[in-house]
Amino acid sequence: MSIGVCYFPEHWPRERWTTDVEQMAEAGIEYVRMGEFSWSRLEPRPGELDFEWLETAVDLVHEHGMKAVLCTPTATPPKWLVDQHPDILQEEPDGSARHFGSRRHYCFNSETYREQTDRIVTVLAEHFADHPAVVGWQTDNEYGCHDTIRCYCDDCATAFRIWLREKYGGIDTLNESWGTTFWSQHHTDFEEIDPPRHTVTDHHPGRLLDYHRFASASVVSYNRSQADRLREANDDWFVTHNFMFDFGQLDPYDVGDDLDFAAWDSYPTGFPQVADDDPADADELRVGNLDQIGFNHDRYRCAAPGNFWVMEQQPGAINWPPETTQPAKGAMRLWAHHAVAHGADVVSYFRWRRCLEGQEQYHAGLRKRDGTADRGYHDATAAAAELADLDRGSVTAPVALVLDYESLWALDEQAMSPDFDYWNHLHTYYHALRGRGVQVDVLPTDADFEDYDAVLAPSLHLVGDDVESAFRRYVESGGHLLFTIRSGEKDPHNKLHATRPPGPLADLAGVRVDQHESVPADSPDARLSYRGERYGYRTWAEWIDADDARVVGQYATGIGEGRTAITVREAEPGSVAYVGIWPDAELADALVSDVLTRANVTHAADPLPDRVRVAHRGDLTWVFNYSSEPIDVDVGDADVRLGEETVPGYDLLVIEGTPTDVAVER
Amino acid sequence: MSIGVCYFPEHWPRERWTTDVEQMAEAGIEYVRMGEFSWSRLEPRPGELDFEWLETAVDLVHEHGMKAVLCTPTATPPKWLVDQHPDILQEEPDGSARHFGSRRHYCFNSETYREQTDRIVTVLAEHFADHPAVVGWQTDNEYGCHDTIRCYCDDCATAFRIWLREKYGGIDTLNESWGTTFWSQHHTDFEEIDPPRHTVTDHHPGRLLDYHRFASASVVSYNRSQADRLREANDDWFVTHNFMFDFGQLDPYDVGDDLDFAAWDSYPTGFPQVADDDPADADELRVGNLDQIGFNHDRYRCAAPGNFWVMEQQPGAINWPPETTQPAKGAMRLWAHHAVAHGADVVSYFRWRRCLEGQEQYHAGLRKRDGTADRGYHDATAAAAELADLDRGSVTAPVALVLDYESLWALDEQAMSPDFDYWNHLHTYYHALRGRGVQVDVLPTDADFEDYDAVLAPSLHLVGDDVESAFRRYVESGGHLLFTIRSGEKDPHNKLHATRPPGPLADLAGVRVDQHESVPADSPDARLSYRGERYGYRTWAEWIDADDARVVGQYATGIGEGRTAITVREAEPGSVAYVGIWPDAELADALVSDVLTRANVTHAADPLPDRVRVAHRGDLTWVFNYSSEPIDVDVGDADVRLGEETVPGYDLLVIEGTPTDVAVER
Amino acid sequence: MSIGVCYFPEHWPRERWTTDVEQMAEAGIEYVRMGEFSWSRLEPRPGELDFEWLETAVDLVHEHGMKAVLCTPTATPPKWLVDQHPDILQEEPDGSARHFGSRRHYCFNSETYREQTDRIVTVLAEHFADHPAVVGWQTDNEYGCHDTIRCYCDDCATAFRIWLREKYGGIDTLNESWGTTFWSQHHTDFEEIDPPRHTVTDHHPGRLLDYHRFASASVVSYNRSQADRLREANDDWFVTHNFMFDFGQLDPYDVGDDLDFAAWDSYPTGFPQVADDDPADADELRVGNLDQIGFNHDRYRCAAPGNFWVMEQQPGAINWPPETTQPAKGAMRLWAHHAVAHGADVVSYFRWRRCLEGQEQYHAGLRKRDGTADRGYHDATAAAAELADLDRGSVTAPVALVLDYESLWALDEQAMSPDFDYWNHLHTYYHALRGRGVQVDVLPTDADFEDYDAVLAPSLHLVGDDVESAFRRYVESGGHLLFTIRSGEKDPHNKLHATRPPGPLADLAGVRVDQHESVPADSPDARLSYRGERYGYRTWAEWIDADDARVVGQYATGIGEGRTAITVREAEPGSVAYVGIWPDAELADALVSDVLTRANVTHAADPLPDRVRVAHRGDLTWVFNYSSEPIDVDVGDADVRLGEETVPGYDLLVIEGTPTDVAVER
Repeated sequence: MSIGVCYFPEHWPRERWTTDVEQMAEAGIEYVRMGEFSWSRLEPRPGELDFEWLETAVDLVHEHGMKAVLCTPTATPPKWLVDQHPDILQEEPDGSARHFGSRRHYCFNSETYREQTDRIVTVLAEHFADHPAVVGWQTDNEYGCHDTIRCYCDDCATAFRIWLREKYGGIDTLNESWGTTFWSQHHTDFEEIDPPRHTVTDHHPGRLLDYHRFASASVVSYNRSQADRLREANDDWFVTHNFMFDFGQLDPYDVGDDLDFAAWDSYPTGFPQVADDDPADADELRVGNLDQIGFNHDRYRCAAPGNFWVMEQQPGAINWPPETTQPAKGAMRLWAHHAVAHGADVVSYFRWRRCLEGQEQYHAGLRKRDGTADRGYHDATAAAAELADLDRGSVTAPVALVLDYESLWALDEQAMSPDFDYWNHLHTYYHALRGRGVQVDVLPTDADFEDYDAVLAPSLHLVGDDVESAFRRYVESGGHLLFTIRSGEKDPHNKLHATRPPGPLADLAGVRVDQHESVPADSPDARLSYRGERYGYRTWAEWIDADDARVVGQYATGIGEGRTAITVREAEPGSVAYVGIWPDAELADALVSDVLTRANVTHAADPLPDRVRVAHRGDLTWVFNYSSEPIDVDVGDADVRLGEETVPGYDLLVIEGTPTDVAVER
Repeated sequence: MSIGVCYFPEHWPRERWTTDVEQMAEAGIEYVRMGEFSWSRLEPRPGELDFEWLETAVDLVHEHGMKAVLCTPTATPPKWLVDQHPDILQEEPDGSARHFGSRRHYCFNSETYREQTDRIVTVLAEHFADHPAVVGWQTDNEYGCHDTIRCYCDDCATAFRIWLREKYGGIDTLNESWGTTFWSQHHTDFEEIDPPRHTVTDHHPGRLLDYHRFASASVVSYNRSQADRLREANDDWFVTHNFMFDFGQLDPYDVGDDLDFAAWDSYPTGFPQVADDDPADADELRVGNLDQIGFNHDRYRCAAPGNFWVMEQQPGAINWPPETTQPAKGAMRLWAHHAVAHGADVVSYFRWRRCLEGQEQYHAGLRKRDGTADRGYHDATAAAAELADLDRGSVTAPVALVLDYESLWALDEQAMSPDFDYWNHLHTYYHALRGRGVQVDVLPTDADFEDYDAVLAPSLHLVGDDVESAFRRYVESGGHLLFTIRSGEKDPHNKLHATRPPGPLADLAGVRVDQHESVPADSPDARLSYRGERYGYRTWAEWIDADDARVVGQYATGIGEGRTAITVREAEPGSVAYVGIWPDAELADALVSDVLTRANVTHAADPLPDRVRVAHRGDLTWVFNYSSEPIDVDVGDADVRLGEETVPGYDLLVIEGTPTDVAVER
Repeated sequence: MSIGVCYFPEHWPRERWTTDVEQMAEAGIEYVRMGEFSWSRLEPRPGELDFEWLETAVDLVHEHGMKAVLCTPTATPPKWLVDQHPDILQEEPDGSARHFGSRRHYCFNSETYREQTDRIVTVLAEHFADHPAVVGWQTDNEYGCHDTIRCYCDDCATAFRIWLREKYGGIDTLNESWGTTFWSQHHTDFEEIDPPRHTVTDHHPGRLLDYHRFASASVVSYNRSQADRLREANDDWFVTHNFMFDFGQLDPYDVGDDLDFAAWDSYPTGFPQVADDDPADADELRVGNLDQIGFNHDRYRCAAPGNFWVMEQQPGAINWPPETTQPAKGAMRLWAHHAVAHGADVVSYFRWRRCLEGQEQYHAGLRKRDGTADRGYHDATAAAAELADLDRGSVTAPVALVLDYESLWALDEQAMSPDFDYWNHLHTYYHALRGRGVQVDVLPTDADFEDYDAVLAPSLHLVGDDVESAFRRYVESGGHLLFTIRSGEKDPHNKLHATRPPGPLADLAGVRVDQHESVPADSPDARLSYRGERYGYRTWAEWIDADDARVVGQYATGIGEGRTAITVREAEPGSVAYVGIWPDAELADALVSDVLTRANVTHAADPLPDRVRVAHRGDLTWVFNYSSEPIDVDVGDADVRLGEETVPGYDLLVIEGTPTDVAVER
């Protein structure tokens, strides 16, 4: 449970560095991340390498008893490199270039850029291979930021053709797999196949899905090449990457196979402004959305072997969201505790000092532009001191939530409703699980679910035999599953199964879907009865034939009145629920608490207040209050380790044990 | 009055075909449309033709006593053809290509593509020339879908110059006709003239209008070439094309000159979501908008010599609109009756079975993905049985509504109000006419109006001497005309007439417009008095000098208070009304019922309820209820042929004769 | 105080010209502007010059005792010129061309186009050098219309590199000035630097700001070249240019250095529809926004040495805004008086007669399309007669409002709030000043402020030592300054100052900003107390450390409660206020009236009604009523020169002296 900071010595006069590093050490900071985006300082002109400045900074960090994390500088190739090799630029679907001027202006499939990457990473790694302060590396920066996973250039066309040839062997297999008879999309040769460039209406779903897979895989292989170079230089180093929130074009589980642990960059007041269904509210503009943050902690904890880091933690007001509000008092401390409670090893603030130049001038640092302490500095110092006192236990979860990037890619292209969003649908269930105080692992479909008491797999759209077998084995061994709308609709090639949904999962769930439809946002009559109570639903409705399952929910109104909406198949000792609608929050809570009960998972008797959550790590329990109102926590027999039983707005409590009750006082 | 279906045998295993065709025959289907989009199966590699599969399917249809309609496959050139001739792709105004990957990726003016089209159509036509089951052809598919009539490539530039040279002879004539002195747009040679590519503000109206004419004419000539090839092979075949709804870039009356009859593709739950002024409401999401459907039936009935077909009738939930709602129970039957009542010879459902592959996986068929009957199948079977019992009479209309595509093109480029939309303005009058139970023919300006009791020509923007003469003769022979806002403003070159609007129509209408202005959507004071009653108006207002006409409407409020808004010129035995505002529904009804009265057209004493309409064909009258509430029909002396006098929600009644009264019961 | 008109004889048959010119003379018109956009008539084919028609028209004007203003025709190069030199076209950031078809389709940095410009301007100027009727020239037309100041073509790339080399001398200086270490944006050579073309996220602020400066400077030098050619032909001619409203990409003060006076084009019913925060309301759609018009008069009066002209005055309904409403009765007369009251020498209506051809057919003229008098003609005639009777005094202002285009450019790229708009922030203060009846000069930062009693410099974002010194001297000499949010944040290279804002102004203002944040539009608690009263604020809030200033405003609510929001530093005899929020209208009035009081500027005891303003010129005072309700003016001892003391809606009053009180009667 350590605090880190992101530092850019190259932005400051050398005579300032000692002061900066001293102040970091005083603050209790243990890790200093450096080198990111610094290619044009490491190699100011072609072949003219200058690592001295970085080495000096690393030495300083070492002298002050801290550790250095270095970054490969590949997210920002210098202009001289772009001018030497203009072909490294990415292209838009209409063929225009994504030019130099910001960042991420390189194509992952450019052989030229891969060679340049190998070269710069190798010399950097070799240079620092024996430095005692360097403990590991971050590759590149936020792959996929600004929608840059998918490129449409000729290098991508060539690489896509090779990737397809390797996957399918012969063109007939590809034609059969995609289903290219539709609209005369039969191909006679792999050389015919381009990236899905601008066309007048929808692209073919099979071609699109493979392009999305290929684009993600291109990043995976690009990153692997960096990781290999780094480990060749020093195999004791860790290698990580700083992911970002819900950037959906890259599968972090695949990247994670080449990392020692995953890291992510957490900007709580920004994310609710760009990602949520609803506009950010006043609390979210001050501290963010509690479950959105928790979901990311839980996802990235599961994305690679080790625990995770928050590589960049918001330090104050930031520049990139529409509203640049000030975080609440203490928010920067709250976020550090939140990350640690979910399993973070390190929380590293971005950045040390507000930068005077470039695109992020309006991004706060722990220190102000004039070098004096900013609001985040006091929070970081407090968090460092508090966390030093708390034991580092492990995070365990009885429930798995399945996050399938390929289903996301397929559903994003065929939403079939203005309101269908895979992330939001997942969040509905995550919110309900956390609302019952239950820990969650967020896992891909090929994870080992054996040890989980319950598994929720919302909108598992693409299902092949392997996935079906895994879930069948899980249920047969006593597992409790919950499937939802649109599951099993398609095969892994993004074709419909010839059987009705949930396709290969139909026997397991005991249901077949007769009809589906979208539900407009303002539909007055979207009501159903579930176990005798009325609830609301939204966005999507399916009429279910419950061939071999108990009907537990039926439409109470509208065109489908009386049709089945929700079922449970008892498969003793396991069970499989199928939820044919997108539940409102109250119904999601009922559905989740019922599956938890079936699975014998301990959970809160009543749902926690919306902006209040608990998190367990080792023997410790954190209670987080992300609202402006105080809450009362009945700690029962537990010992308070930090805070008071009445937790003020935007504050927290740490106890040894589990609270008896949590209530909001207004 | 027959039922058909669109079938894609190439999407299914050959061993399934017999089952499919048997089931079609059982359902009462008489026509099977095939071959659409199948180029890459008909010619899998350059020159390698394979018609065997299609012939087998046609044979099967024949064996089961049905008839086959074949389609030319030109809407989807295969990728090998695009790679051989990349110049066939269309281009956007900014010069980027409209790439392969969906459909309609060819330019109508590509000589290469015209040659390829001739080649494939000729061999196909010759191959099936003597097949007894083949009764006719559909050319291509939905010209103009995805805004593809207008292309901006170099082939279009060349063809446009030729087209202009033929039209104008000399460049001086063009300069004079367009009026190119404005902003130095004088041309010294036809070779200077490009398609209207991306420029920083509005293009020249003369150049734009001619480009829009040229683009439409390019499709007409492309289609004519297909029709010629088909008729060369077998002159007994019919040739048709499946138009689509309000795609406005192509004039279907011009295409219709080369067709035996027009067809259109009817997707009632989709159109209100993309076309209307207002968001689609609950009824529209279940059965569509009654007058929107009827308008299309009436338009396409008049677009070519014969009666019309619905070539594609929505079979259930569909994939392409924002909301993918389920149609109401019985909707697919209701739509078939609606089409037949308006004169359809055949209603052909799209498609037989939900397709497992490609872009339309979320589009229902009459059969589900697993081959079992879907909701539409039961409706289609019911419609087939019912329609077999009903006599096929003819549709006649006492009133013509003028639809002028050139005025549409001109007004679309110079709307002069955020709310002015030519279609919606037309629909205002169509709605009022149908609301009085009056049959309507929707006709171009060069139609013969002699036999119509009344003619409504809303916003007839471009008026030359020919149009003026035709209407003058019509009125002199006792006809009753109604003109509205913005009529006669421009000459056929899209220049202003030098006289005040309605320009050449001024004497006929007896008015000159002094001023016009847009009326913002929320204007509180848009009220006028018409024949002593107060009414509302919207969007556009003109201050009229009634030189030789009776003032029947005056502004009651606002800046134009007291000015004339509506006039009638009595030209015994005929009359000419001029309406200087866009009326609200109540005023439109009053205006229409007054012109019907003047013209002695029988019409309902009171307007029909909004979602209730009657339609007459031969001796039969259909009463349609497109609302969820039941209606009571007083059939008087008429005989009920189908249904009950109380018509349930989303249902219909057929009687021999005309109803006495129709009332909604709530 | 003269009336003019814009005339296009080339649009009309020659036999009409005499009638037109006679009618102009009858109307009291003194100036006729001609020749604009006429290149293709002046040179119909390459090298084939034809000035005869223009000369004939100028002769006619002369014969009727009027004066001619000629225009260079460079805003619309003919197509033959574009085809000869396609490189003259501008390019979009994605590399696509801005094609021929409208206007402004040339690049200011094309050497080819500069040569062609020189050629045509020189021959034109020489041709008319001795014509007695020609009194001066307008260069080109509305530089920047349709966002055309900034171009991204290769010619601009070349010119930008030269401009940068001249500015910085060496590349190291540029790197240091911009701060290119951020994101590896270090440049090794000027040849590396491109225009800021399409990139995936924000461009570098230093590079952007210099590109914006360069783009504006390119127009300045292009215009200077035209002015030089004209003066070489006849040094007695005036040279002006017709600017447009808030087109922000061009600095008119810089262009103004090469003009004898500035002109602008005033379209009051259009501007509120495209520029304001709020949708245009009913009054604005009839007469425009009073302060928006006044601001432009005051800006362009200050943009060049002489008084200003309104070169194009709206004559009736116009074509380009979304709503094309009719101006109120008398509006065209009201606008002429308004311009004159603010210092206009000439008000010239656009255009003489509605044009039958081209893009502006829906733009009214003083004469209708048929040549008869339109509403504007009667207004223009009335204005001409009234203004002939009124003496021409000078306009003086006790207060300066600073308008800094470089701050605008910087803030536009980094708004940091969805609602922050530099123009609107300025208008808040302009509105408050004019609301107290105070005359305002709108000036750039390098103006001489010595003679102003008070200077308001809202959001003066970029501040270097020169600006700081100028304001320091101003305060030391007894001046009263008001700074607001975001001032002094950056240095002239668009880098942050290393000291806290207001940076170099901190000592002068006696404050440093601790934090800033955006304030969402619907924030319920944006309240502060100012001198004991509660007020609202919006969009932006700063927490101020009042090191050496008196605290006069504090946050009353929210996260900053108790922090300082507004200060005044008494610097006897001067003072410096710092306003750390964007005030609502009531607070802006309080702030402004307090600074006026400190500065001893005479001002109204109470704010004038919103749509009522006074303006002084010489001994005359105009009272304008831009609302539909009448107002009562207590003229006290003053003499009424025009109008009545009860001023009807949309009307005016002219008195000799100053009114005692102005009240709205409802």
